[in-house]
Amino acid sequence: MKSLIGKYPFEVETFQIDYTGGLSFGFLANKMLITAGNHADERGFGKARLSADGKTWVLSRLAIEIYEYPGEGDTYYVETWVESVNRLFTSRNFRVLSTDGRVIGYARTIWALIDVETRQPADLTTLYDGELASYSCDEECPIKGVSRARVTATEPSGEFMPLYCDIDYNGHLNSVKYIEHILNCLPLEIFRTHTIRRVEVSYSAECFYRESLAVYMDKKDDGHEYDVEIRKAGGEVACRAKIIFEASSVPSQGGVTRMPNE
Amino acid sequence: MKSLIGKYPFEVETFQIDYTGGLSFGFLANKMLITAGNHADERGFGKARLSADGKTWVLSRLAIEIYEYPGEGDTYYVETWVESVNRLFTSRNFRVLSTDGRVIGYARTIWALIDVETRQPADLTTLYDGELASYSCDEECPIKGVSRARVTATEPSGEFMPLYCDIDYNGHLNSVKYIEHILNCLPLEIFRTHTIRRVEVSYSAECFYRESLAVYMDKKDDGHEYDVEIRKAGGEVACRAKIIFEASSVPSQGGVTRMPNE
Repeated sequence: MKSLIGKYPFEVETFQIDYTGGLSFGFLANKMLITAGNHADERGFGKARLSADGKTWVLSRLAIEIYEYPGEGDTYYVETWVESVNRLFTSRNFRVLSTDGRVIGYARTIWALIDVETRQPADLTTLYDGELASYSCDEECPIKGVSRARVTATEPSGEFMPLYCDIDYNGHLNSVKYIEHILNCLPLEIFRTHTIRRVEVSYSAECFYRESLAVYMDKKDDGHEYDVEIRKAGGEVACRAKIIFEASSVPSQGGVTRMPNE
Repeated sequence: MKSLIGKYPFEVETFQIDYTGGLSFGFLANKMLITAGNHADERGFGKARLSADGKTWVLSRLAIEIYEYPGEGDTYYVETWVESVNRLFTSRNFRVLSTDGRVIGYARTIWALIDVETRQPADLTTLYDGELASYSCDEECPIKGVSRARVTATEPSGEFMPLYCDIDYNGHLNSVKYIEHILNCLPLEIFRTHTIRRVEVSYSAECFYRESLAVYMDKKDDGHEYDVEIRKAGGEVACRAKIIFEASSVPSQGGVTRMPNE
């Protein structure tokens, strides 16, 4: 049997850094989902085997905390493991390590498994004779799960439509793109003086190509925290999110005039 | 002295594939610019040394032809070399290889070197005692350079503003984002039945955070070719581009209902 915890190295490439010079949050979140897929594939409950059975994993909730962002060229590591398996949901946790092995972040995710045709959830405790549950691991993940933010804002902070570059092979808005479109609606200045400490997302509905979506935000804690909802035209909530910032020790030097390809 | 040609391996990760299931064009273009930076760094005329001297490379023109797109999980290789060095411009070419070493693409780029403060171009023939020129290499790159498309359209096909996730550390719209925003304005259906065979871009102006930009297109050759201009609010052309499609041998299966995280 494979080890319970998978560890995957990544390098921060040019174009993966954002305006502040640190690893772009969206890229980091993508790498976590990549490790989730690799870890599951390597243990026999990944995409390949499941799609052959007409099933697919659905990300339901996501909470990521990052205490230090790797810079361009830095190597970092994402570790992931299955925390628990219930009938309808399984929780998968993550730990992010710096080049020298320091813990610089954690994440918690909640997943369901559904039938691609019927959209009905599968019983995870009996999946492949309980194979999934056999990988449960009580490794520590000392961060809170997703909270239950409700947004009162009645005026959108921004609007967008998923376009060609937002959608995956599935034809839906990619999980991480929800986060990127939310970050796009925040005041740019905050990224220069603050870093994203924590992001929570509760996914409620799939979003489709060219569907009109609006981002509603409640600004809290003097602008260090934002409760967010992405709503569809009819008002249906596509996702609820919370973005928590922390003042940077050193203000970013980003935004000085440089050429696009530098 | 280092070899004239640099060769760099890449793997197509989940989330790097687009709606059609093939490597997303934007990711491929990014990888090419990454190899340009690595190749230059390794030979002593890269970002690190140049920025210390207050200079930076500016991408002026780009032409990419792709004949076959690697799929998810595939390894591919990007080779790059300096073709020629003149006083104001240097040309750098690229070759893309499949896992088994077949050529699946080529690219041509034209770069200038400018002073970060004065924005004045540097003389490339004398840079570091002609060091750059010593890397010129007459490896074959059998594709045409950038043509001179002019767009007559008076109505925009789309509009956008560079937002947080579009801008780099430099505070400008990333070179590849110009292309992605153009692709976002094309009819989605064409990506299901066609693949991008060739992209040309001529960069004329930097684009800034939340600047209003519009995409104008002339549809040609029965919709297989698009001449494009991204124009600023005042009408100034930010870039000229040409996108050439080729009918796919097999229509993509993309867009079947799948979950965002699959």
